[in-house]
Amino acid sequence: MNYAIDDLILVMKTTKSAICVGLDPFLDKIPDLFIQEGEKLFGKTLSGASYAILKFNKTVLELLAGKVAVVKPQFSLYLKYGPEGVYAFYQTISYAKQLGFLVIADAKSNDIDSSMEGYVQGFLGEAEVSDKKQKVFNADFLTVNPYLGSDSYKPLKKVIECYKKGAFILSKTSNKSSAEYQDKDLDGYHLYLTVAKDVSSYFSDMKGENGYLAAGIVVGATMPEQIKIIRKSFPGLFFLIPGFGAQGGDIDALKYAFSKNIGFIVNASRSILYSYLDLYRDLGFEKAIIKSCEDMNEKVNSVIKW
Amino acid sequence: MNYAIDDLILVMKTTKSAICVGLDPFLDKIPDLFIQEGEKLFGKTLSGASYAILKFNKTVLELLAGKVAVVKPQFSLYLKYGPEGVYAFYQTISYAKQLGFLVIADAKSNDIDSSMEGYVQGFLGEAEVSDKKQKVFNADFLTVNPYLGSDSYKPLKKVIECYKKGAFILSKTSNKSSAEYQDKDLDGYHLYLTVAKDVSSYFSDMKGENGYLAAGIVVGATMPEQIKIIRKSFPGLFFLIPGFGAQGGDIDALKYAFSKNIGFIVNASRSILYSYLDLYRDLGFEKAIIKSCEDMNEKVNSVIKW
Repeated sequence: MNYAIDDLILVMKTTKSAICVGLDPFLDKIPDLFIQEGEKLFGKTLSGASYAILKFNKTVLELLAGKVAVVKPQFSLYLKYGPEGVYAFYQTISYAKQLGFLVIADAKSNDIDSSMEGYVQGFLGEAEVSDKKQKVFNADFLTVNPYLGSDSYKPLKKVIECYKKGAFILSKTSNKSSAEYQDKDLDGYHLYLTVAKDVSSYFSDMKGENGYLAAGIVVGATMPEQIKIIRKSFPGLFFLIPGFGAQGGDIDALKYAFSKNIGFIVNASRSILYSYLDLYRDLGFEKAIIKSCEDMNEKVNSVIKW
Repeated sequence: MNYAIDDLILVMKTTKSAICVGLDPFLDKIPDLFIQEGEKLFGKTLSGASYAILKFNKTVLELLAGKVAVVKPQFSLYLKYGPEGVYAFYQTISYAKQLGFLVIADAKSNDIDSSMEGYVQGFLGEAEVSDKKQKVFNADFLTVNPYLGSDSYKPLKKVIECYKKGAFILSKTSNKSSAEYQDKDLDGYHLYLTVAKDVSSYFSDMKGENGYLAAGIVVGATMPEQIKIIRKSFPGLFFLIPGFGAQGGDIDALKYAFSKNIGFIVNASRSILYSYLDLYRDLGFEKAIIKSCEDMNEKVNSVIKW
């Protein structure tokens, strides 16, 4: 079968890029010209902020088109600016898809029954209004938090089949306090590993033509040892790897994650979007974005046989 | 200290109601007149759906004002209709607060660092645009998923102190598959109990004047045994209890949850909002909502000494 995860692998191979650029808007880091344009039009308001974010994202997307295959807007950083911010999130996804990117909605959604369906239909599928179905955010993948168990996975199967979408379920996150629960021994098995095992078995009937299940997992680049263990135990899981760059994740994690048909996509946000404030402060923000993206592609490609 | 949790207890005592009405919009259940009004104005669109939802919610809020103290809009069921739906969520909160309700934003948020801050600032606190801070959704409480560990709790402390807000962290959820991880033995302690213990210790420096910590936990009404254990082990935790009514939770759960200054608030959504389709199909939807709300108050009050 051909699933969204197979499309992902295909565009990665086409662009020769295994990175996903995190569209994480921070008003204090976005270049002034966008902020000022937003303020000029809407004042120092949530609308002004959302306008600046959207304009910045569009510029970033235009700069990166063809260089990376996937972007990942972080939902919370748009939600922060209210319905206007969520509108910028929506427009960002729409523009990204217009330019040919695949989009991961990073909302770490979780709930049960019809509530989880709400997230899945909204972010990935369609909403029904009377007898008329319509696309909403129309992202390609959604991140999902497993704390509520497989009730949160159930609605995913339908969008995977009907709409060719996918999901990444949190297994081992990149943050320090992820150890508090995820590393605990659960009847002889770490929680993060139990989640990986369960995802692997829950979606076992949905294996794509590249050898990966239609739903993958999230494992942090800061967790190389855990990546090694999961890769070995569950070769059918595709990894979304955050925490590279700004959070200190290193290249070993990617070596362990690499497998037939790549096996992972690695996210970078601040280290690309805002490198003009830091590593490439001598370049303008546009050149800095392109340069840091190329650096990242090169670094990541050192562990990949395409 | 006086925290948002103390305000909650005060309004519960004032209204003599320990219930929270879940504002869970389902287009196939909302009375036709609202749906038709939405369609007439905006067609069978996401805007039409969102308009119908908001109008219905406003009517519900007017009917319930003074009868219950707290409402809990379920974020996913608004998000499902895109930015327009999120705007209806925003307007619902705003109108609820105008009418004197306290509002729990049920978004089961979770993330790390600045991303978690995004949720907390957006749902509860303020967003900063240039040097100007402004309220966004301005709910009073947020539900939070603990899978990422205490990194997800960190930004809560600030809004608890600066904005007099609160949170309920998922411990034992009401759904069947909650057992998959939450009931696992973690180094001799169930995961749900470990979460309760950690919340209890993380917020131990924020004890309100009614004896409860500024952040409480979510435990399902379908889990009476677990409620009994948590209440005994962690008397400082206030409970948000979903799963009563439609999901089959029973009165024993509330008996175990009850403590000094009540100790819990119990949610009902469909069994109140849509009782005109079911138990009270002979009444119009307005009378049915009032009647089922009174029934629920009576039932819950049978275990409470005010």
